[in-house]
Amino acid sequence: MAIESKITDVEKIAVIGSGNWGTAIARIIGVNVVQLKGFDREVKMWVFEETVGGRNLTELINEKHENVKYLPGFKIPENVKAVPDLLETIKDATILVFVIPHQFLHDVCDQLKGKVHIKAKAITLIKGFDISDTGIRPMSEVIHEVLKVPVCTLSGANIANEIAAEKFSETTIGYRNRQEGELFKRLFETKYYRVGIVDDVVGVELCGALKNVVAIGAGIIDGLKMGDNTKAAIIRIGLLEMKKFIKMFYKGIKDETFFESCGIADVITSCYGGRNRKVAEAHVLTGKSFDQLEKELLNGQKLQGTLTAKELNMVLKRKGLEREFPLFTTIYKISFDGAAPQKIVEDII
Amino acid sequence: MAIESKITDVEKIAVIGSGNWGTAIARIIGVNVVQLKGFDREVKMWVFEETVGGRNLTELINEKHENVKYLPGFKIPENVKAVPDLLETIKDATILVFVIPHQFLHDVCDQLKGKVHIKAKAITLIKGFDISDTGIRPMSEVIHEVLKVPVCTLSGANIANEIAAEKFSETTIGYRNRQEGELFKRLFETKYYRVGIVDDVVGVELCGALKNVVAIGAGIIDGLKMGDNTKAAIIRIGLLEMKKFIKMFYKGIKDETFFESCGIADVITSCYGGRNRKVAEAHVLTGKSFDQLEKELLNGQKLQGTLTAKELNMVLKRKGLEREFPLFTTIYKISFDGAAPQKIVEDII
Repeated sequence: MAIESKITDVEKIAVIGSGNWGTAIARIIGVNVVQLKGFDREVKMWVFEETVGGRNLTELINEKHENVKYLPGFKIPENVKAVPDLLETIKDATILVFVIPHQFLHDVCDQLKGKVHIKAKAITLIKGFDISDTGIRPMSEVIHEVLKVPVCTLSGANIANEIAAEKFSETTIGYRNRQEGELFKRLFETKYYRVGIVDDVVGVELCGALKNVVAIGAGIIDGLKMGDNTKAAIIRIGLLEMKKFIKMFYKGIKDETFFESCGIADVITSCYGGRNRKVAEAHVLTGKSFDQLEKELLNGQKLQGTLTAKELNMVLKRKGLEREFPLFTTIYKISFDGAAPQKIVEDII
Repeated sequence: MAIESKITDVEKIAVIGSGNWGTAIARIIGVNVVQLKGFDREVKMWVFEETVGGRNLTELINEKHENVKYLPGFKIPENVKAVPDLLETIKDATILVFVIPHQFLHDVCDQLKGKVHIKAKAITLIKGFDISDTGIRPMSEVIHEVLKVPVCTLSGANIANEIAAEKFSETTIGYRNRQEGELFKRLFETKYYRVGIVDDVVGVELCGALKNVVAIGAGIIDGLKMGDNTKAAIIRIGLLEMKKFIKMFYKGIKDETFFESCGIADVITSCYGGRNRKVAEAHVLTGKSFDQLEKELLNGQKLQGTLTAKELNMVLKRKGLEREFPLFTTIYKISFDGAAPQKIVEDII
């Protein structure tokens, strides 16, 4: 049951999440709402409370206007307020920006159920998906099902620190209703951050999830020092497996989506920068497990690629499709089954 | 007028060119013809004679079985013979492999006119194209027009030294007649070098030419140290301008071609490795001209990207299309018009 707690003509934003990416996007939103018509100046950002040097992270963010733990070195506009209470964050909000690790989404949605504004629209920046008996379920569908709100999706070649540093970047928003796509484009676009919109929520979203698996593959190639040709081949094969998988499980996926920032560009960025590549390279070079390297290298951030590879493999195994996706399957085996990294090339030849 | 100088049931190969890429591909062909049925063991490789340390390059290659100037450190099979005379090289050859800098093709074709075997088929590995009054003319068409032989094309994510080192790579052959596509696939494919074939000669070939322009753009981004997001955005925009340009000037171009190794993978490889990227990065870092850097950094090799950018710009300017291709146009202006490297991002915003 949605609650209409306040009649309002302006859009009020709640950013649900405050990691590296959540904080970077909250900075953009904070600047844009002040300059654009039709938006409330105040942006609330939900922070899963933790202590940093003996103090609450929310207090540190609101005092220093900087997320000292997850995006140090970049000022957050003062109209962005860190809030430790989830329901307080979304009170009166007409736009919900989901940007949390995907394993936390169900719990968050359960807490929000029946509590969101009657005019609320959501956009998810989450990478990952649920698995179900019939295959996979995008996060946008989970949010839509529980909260009964329309959901768009945003994904692109977006390493958070580079966006925070205002380096030129592109991204893609997938919409079902064009007006919502255009509203979100206004909210997120800046001179240095260009937003393309496409009528393909699921295609955009699943590209963002699956590219992390390809990035694990690219990191393995880097660890093996196999060179640029091999890496480009793995990226190409990975993009094709992504396309094949998404089209196999969903109707209405557009070929053009893979030429957008969420497709080819995000795959490239993730395969040359980004944490999944880095940890996979370290796995090959040190022989340490992904779990251990996540703790050592990611400063509390979660590794999405291996988790996605595991979930993907459960679906492929259940449907007898492992051989049709040799790269995805081999990356899973290297990550969880103790397969030798060299298998990544041998298994696709 | 073709000459039937000898009746033969086996295919006899002439490799026309012996630079870095020509030598790498001659090594593969040299190994394959010995193992495969239907090919003559002897492979002739045309070398534009020059002296290295006071000796003829052909003599050095045939004595050391190594191209000490253009592919040092890799043995060439003994059945590959370096020949300084062009007509001697193609005598009795039924397969002509063109792998020379594109500015030399007309002169070579003129010398070969009327002298090739009646059963000759050609494949071109040349990057670049001619410009004509109506637009651009692929090298495969130049060869076909002068020599009256069927012409396939090969292009892919193929940095020569990595192929020579037998690192896993992919490539694409574009054919008009499927049987020829399959013949060339047999000739070039190895366990570590995977060949895809597509019914799109011009699409494959022009990807190989135009990607060098995008690589100049990527090198400029590297020189400016703008990061992974920006680089992925430039690569994506470059690939889209390639696709738009090729489809604007040619009919029958296939979307799938851009997902092959010759498309996305080659663009990626060239934008992360390769000489065009390297020289463009040095241009930004040192302020030296491309001409000067070509001499300093490329050890006699030619820089294709800037030449292609110039030819491309002549076509775009003539047709009033410069604004429709902002990335190509800006790369031209940075390379030849003294535009600041920073324009690369400013002009596409």
